[in-house]
Amino acid sequence: MADLSRLSFNQMTAGKASLGDVVKACVKHNVGWIGPWRHAVGVNPQAAAQLIRSAGLKVSSLCRGGMFPAATAEERRRRIEDNLRAIDEAAAIGTDLLVLVNGPAPGRDIDGARQMVVDGIAAVAGHAAQSGVRLGVEPLHPMFAADRSVVVTMGEANEIAARFPAGQVGLVVDVYHIWWDPQVYAEIAKAGDRIFAFHVSDWIVPTPDFLMGRGMMGDGVIELQRLRGAAERAGYKGPIEVEIFNEALWARPADEIVGLVAERFQEFV
Amino acid sequence: MADLSRLSFNQMTAGKASLGDVVKACVKHNVGWIGPWRHAVGVNPQAAAQLIRSAGLKVSSLCRGGMFPAATAEERRRRIEDNLRAIDEAAAIGTDLLVLVNGPAPGRDIDGARQMVVDGIAAVAGHAAQSGVRLGVEPLHPMFAADRSVVVTMGEANEIAARFPAGQVGLVVDVYHIWWDPQVYAEIAKAGDRIFAFHVSDWIVPTPDFLMGRGMMGDGVIELQRLRGAAERAGYKGPIEVEIFNEALWARPADEIVGLVAERFQEFV
Repeated sequence: MADLSRLSFNQMTAGKASLGDVVKACVKHNVGWIGPWRHAVGVNPQAAAQLIRSAGLKVSSLCRGGMFPAATAEERRRRIEDNLRAIDEAAAIGTDLLVLVNGPAPGRDIDGARQMVVDGIAAVAGHAAQSGVRLGVEPLHPMFAADRSVVVTMGEANEIAARFPAGQVGLVVDVYHIWWDPQVYAEIAKAGDRIFAFHVSDWIVPTPDFLMGRGMMGDGVIELQRLRGAAERAGYKGPIEVEIFNEALWARPADEIVGLVAERFQEFV
Repeated sequence: MADLSRLSFNQMTAGKASLGDVVKACVKHNVGWIGPWRHAVGVNPQAAAQLIRSAGLKVSSLCRGGMFPAATAEERRRRIEDNLRAIDEAAAIGTDLLVLVNGPAPGRDIDGARQMVVDGIAAVAGHAAQSGVRLGVEPLHPMFAADRSVVVTMGEANEIAARFPAGQVGLVVDVYHIWWDPQVYAEIAKAGDRIFAFHVSDWIVPTPDFLMGRGMMGDGVIELQRLRGAAERAGYKGPIEVEIFNEALWARPADEIVGLVAERFQEFV
C-alpha cells in the first residue's frame, strides 16, 4: 500500500476546477502535494505559489515544457524561449521539476524530430540548472507519437537523459504511457536515480477514449503496485502524482474527485 | 516506387464487400495477390480457394489465428484447437502463411499472458510445419495491448520467433503498428528472413479513430518507403499487403477502393 503522504494531486485530474478549489480539496483530504499546470499559474506564478504555500501544500512538479520540434529554426527558437519561461515559472511556483512533453515531428521525419528534442533540451539545460529546476523527460504512449511526443519509450527517454548530468535531466514515469512495454522493468531499473517523478492512473478496457479516457486506479489493467515497487527499488522515493484525464471524472466537483483519488491511492497504488 | 506486382489487397480494406466483389476488383485493377480473412473463407475454404484461383489471384496470407491467452486451461485448449483449424484453412485456401494476432491478457498479468502466447505457438507449430503453413507473429500497436495483443513491439516478436525454427515462425511487419518505435530499424534488420509479411497503410493526424481510422498510403506521417527499404534490405521480397480499417473507406464500392489502393501503392509505397 502506498503511504498517503506520498500522494500528489495533479491539477488536471480535476480539469474543470480552479486551482483554488483543488487546493481546498487537497487540504480537506490530507493530500500534501499538488502538481499544477502552466495555464493555471503562468499569468501570476507568485500568486499561485502563495495560494499553494499558505494552504500548507508542496508542489511536486510543473506541467509542462517541451514541444521542441518545429519546421523552422525561428519556430524552434520560440519553443526554446517558451521553455526558458517555463523553467522560471517552475522556480517561482516552488518546485524543482519541470515536466517535458517533447512534441511531435513537424513532418514525416521522426528521427529528425528526435534530434530536435535533444537539441532543445541542451539549449535550456544550463538555465534550468542555474534555476535549481530539473527537467523530466516524459515518454508518452506511442499512440501520441504523431501529435504529442516523438519520445515514446522509457528506453528512448533513458538515452536522452544519459546525455546530460544525472541531477539535471531525468525521467517522468507515467504508468499510463509505459505499462505495455516488454522492456519497462529493465528500463526502470536502468533509469535509477534519473526517475524524477512517478505518475499513476489506470488503463480501462474497453478504453472510452485514448486521450480523455484514462481510468481511476483500480478500474483498469495496469500492474500499479508492481510498477511502483520497481520504481522504488530503482531508488525513487518522491511524491506519486495522480494524473487522470477523463471527461466523466471532470464532471464531478473537485472535492469528490480528490476524495476518491485519496481512497483509491491507498487501496491500489 | 513499389512494383504493382507486389501489391496484395487485404480483404478488410474493403470491409463491407463480399470476397467475390473484392476478387473481381483485384482482377480489374491488375492486383495479383489477395489477403482473405477467416470469416470469409472458414465455412468453405475449398470454394473460396476456387473463387480466388480461377480469377488468377494468389493468396498472400490468411488473417488470423492467435488469441492464445485465456483465464483457464480449458479455454486455452479451445484457442489452440481453433488455431489448428486456422492452419488447415490457410493450407486449404492456398497460402503458406497464417497471421497471428496473439490476444490480450485475461487479467492484469501481462507477462503471464506473454508466456501463454509462446506456449500456444509451441502447441500448434508442429501441425503448421506438417501443413506447410508458416506462422507470422504480428506485433500490434501498444494501444491494443489491453484488448487485442500483448505482443506490441518488433523486439518482442523477434524474441518469440527466435524460439522456433526460422522457416516456421516469423513476423508480420505492419507499419501502422510499429512506425513509432525508436528500435524499429534495428529490429527489422534483426528479423532478417523471419519477415514473413509486410503490411502498409498510414497514420493520419489527427487520428479519427484508433481502430477504424487507419489512413490510405500518402495521407499520413509514416515513412513508408524508408520502412519498405529496410524490410527489403533485411531480405523481404514477398507481397506487400495493404490493410486499412477505415469507416469512410468502407463506405465506397470495392472497385473504387482497389483502384485507389493500386494508385497510392505505386505513388507512396
